[in-house]
Amino acid sequence: MTDTALAPLLAAAASTEPTRIPVWFMRQAGRSLPEYRQVRTGHSMLESCANPELVTEITLQPVRRHRVDAAIFYSDIMVPLRAIGVGVDIQSGVGPVIEKPIRGPEDLQVLRPLEPEDVTYVTEAVRMLVAELGETPLIGFAGAPFTLASYLVEGGPSKDYRRTKAMMVARPDLWNDLCARLAAISAAFLRVQIDAGARCVQLFDSWAGSLSRQDYTAHVMPHSASVLARVDDVPRIHFGVGTGELLADMTRAGADVIGVDWRISLDEAAERVGGRTPVQGNIDPALLGAPWPVLAQRVRDVIRAGAHAPGHIVNLGHGVPPDTDPAVLTRIVDLVHAEGLGLRAEERAA
Amino acid sequence: MTDTALAPLLAAAASTEPTRIPVWFMRQAGRSLPEYRQVRTGHSMLESCANPELVTEITLQPVRRHRVDAAIFYSDIMVPLRAIGVGVDIQSGVGPVIEKPIRGPEDLQVLRPLEPEDVTYVTEAVRMLVAELGETPLIGFAGAPFTLASYLVEGGPSKDYRRTKAMMVARPDLWNDLCARLAAISAAFLRVQIDAGARCVQLFDSWAGSLSRQDYTAHVMPHSASVLARVDDVPRIHFGVGTGELLADMTRAGADVIGVDWRISLDEAAERVGGRTPVQGNIDPALLGAPWPVLAQRVRDVIRAGAHAPGHIVNLGHGVPPDTDPAVLTRIVDLVHAEGLGLRAEERAA
Repeated sequence: MTDTALAPLLAAAASTEPTRIPVWFMRQAGRSLPEYRQVRTGHSMLESCANPELVTEITLQPVRRHRVDAAIFYSDIMVPLRAIGVGVDIQSGVGPVIEKPIRGPEDLQVLRPLEPEDVTYVTEAVRMLVAELGETPLIGFAGAPFTLASYLVEGGPSKDYRRTKAMMVARPDLWNDLCARLAAISAAFLRVQIDAGARCVQLFDSWAGSLSRQDYTAHVMPHSASVLARVDDVPRIHFGVGTGELLADMTRAGADVIGVDWRISLDEAAERVGGRTPVQGNIDPALLGAPWPVLAQRVRDVIRAGAHAPGHIVNLGHGVPPDTDPAVLTRIVDLVHAEGLGLRAEERAA
Repeated sequence: MTDTALAPLLAAAASTEPTRIPVWFMRQAGRSLPEYRQVRTGHSMLESCANPELVTEITLQPVRRHRVDAAIFYSDIMVPLRAIGVGVDIQSGVGPVIEKPIRGPEDLQVLRPLEPEDVTYVTEAVRMLVAELGETPLIGFAGAPFTLASYLVEGGPSKDYRRTKAMMVARPDLWNDLCARLAAISAAFLRVQIDAGARCVQLFDSWAGSLSRQDYTAHVMPHSASVLARVDDVPRIHFGVGTGELLADMTRAGADVIGVDWRISLDEAAERVGGRTPVQGNIDPALLGAPWPVLAQRVRDVIRAGAHAPGHIVNLGHGVPPDTDPAVLTRIVDLVHAEGLGLRAEERAA
């Protein structure tokens, strides 16, 4: 039955029939938009995230331009860490760089609980946003403990997460203390966003796909579950890149919607998580530069595959690449809205 | 039945019982060894690969030190391209850099067929090696068309392979011409190694894991199959990183042994490829720095999981990281040789 009371994103997340197939894009608020590049001029990334007017403007830009079905709060997974005093800088072309990487128990002291007072600019921005957005839901977000820990332990982005993996297997007490602190911080950061009006959250465990299933379930899943359990009053999307082998465990961790990258088709993903969980994804962002007929066909394929799940939120399989032509994103939104329900019904009837 | 006539690697690849569980390591000949760093001093990577004495010495070093069950020919996937005149340099800390990336049909002219005369140093090195190695088999290798194409099209290493993916979907004729040429070159490069005495080959499609299954089967698999079909007189190992979703297709392409990275357990991998194909892998290289009891337990887990396949060649899930303590690799070899058959029998009886 079509649920007209709920915004399409929330209907899909609740496994009820939406009035249209919802679509949004990870990193839709960002460098692909000229209006974003303009307002960011002269402000560093972390400085922008602490400026409620700028956050509001940047978060709204893609909603205005593309008419996507959700706004994603403009922030960074490092924002709550910076807010409690962790020395972190986001370097252009590099990513987060940690002043003093975590090597031993003495380094954990800095990871004190996050209080709403630490991020009043978040509360303020979310309130302004919700007032502007009307029916369009705002998605709050946070980094998952493993992904946050990987930056803190490695000192920055990593190819193989060797120090992080070594810590989890060789020093489980230290690892669990670190991740329990991060879980509390992430949950508190999400709570601030929910309390101010975010109607959905996404937990980004971006780099969990580097782990074997054995390590994920033993050392990572319990901490992500701890975050997700504390925000179960709103739909929770759980996402990572290259997590085909982990989807069932990521769902067990407490996801209401499982985010899927492009490496696995959504029908296979839906089956792998037990068939009762809505899916989000999964257009390959590397194909955004392909000729429109090719890309349009891929979007249709994604919608058809997603029909095998009880709900589907269309998205990319990872973030929008910075040099994407934003007109292509608008065109995808239009296609999903025009053809989505029809394609889904056709596939479900087949 | 234990096959005493065959070297352990070849017995495992033939799904017969080896006299011991075979083990070798991708990039075993390389920077983890002090004796390697010493002989490489003053020689560039590609220069070393063209020097038969140096290739022989470097290929033998890990066999002497670790007593692994196979030598892997010291070369680079770019060697056959350089040999036919492609402008390619391997830059330290970067990887292969292409002088003139392939953008259109006119750029394909340089990709002429590889003749044995182009790589006489390979023939010479393999002959010297085979004479030295005795019963220990030499594994020849080549890059698969997609992975080679990704460097040629992107101009170097890439994070997302956007130009490559755009070419395959938007310009399939150009893509297929490119990959057909690369398939012929790779097959010829393997043929030279086999004719000189290599008793097994590994096709490295290192970056195939970046592809959706749809793109892999449509645009990549046929070209890899074309390489593998031309070298089916020796056991063929087919490997890529993050290819959990592609294992069945990579096996269908013509693999006698399927290489598996650490993201998927070997019992799951064996099941995914139909249960009749031997597996190779899959210790997480990021764990080589873990305390020995932890790592030893992982090696045992890997052997137990591999018992669910008809044959198992122990290896890492990717190459040896350059700063690995080589003593750890020797210790893994000793463990596999001492405990491997027992663990495998125990698991198979359970």
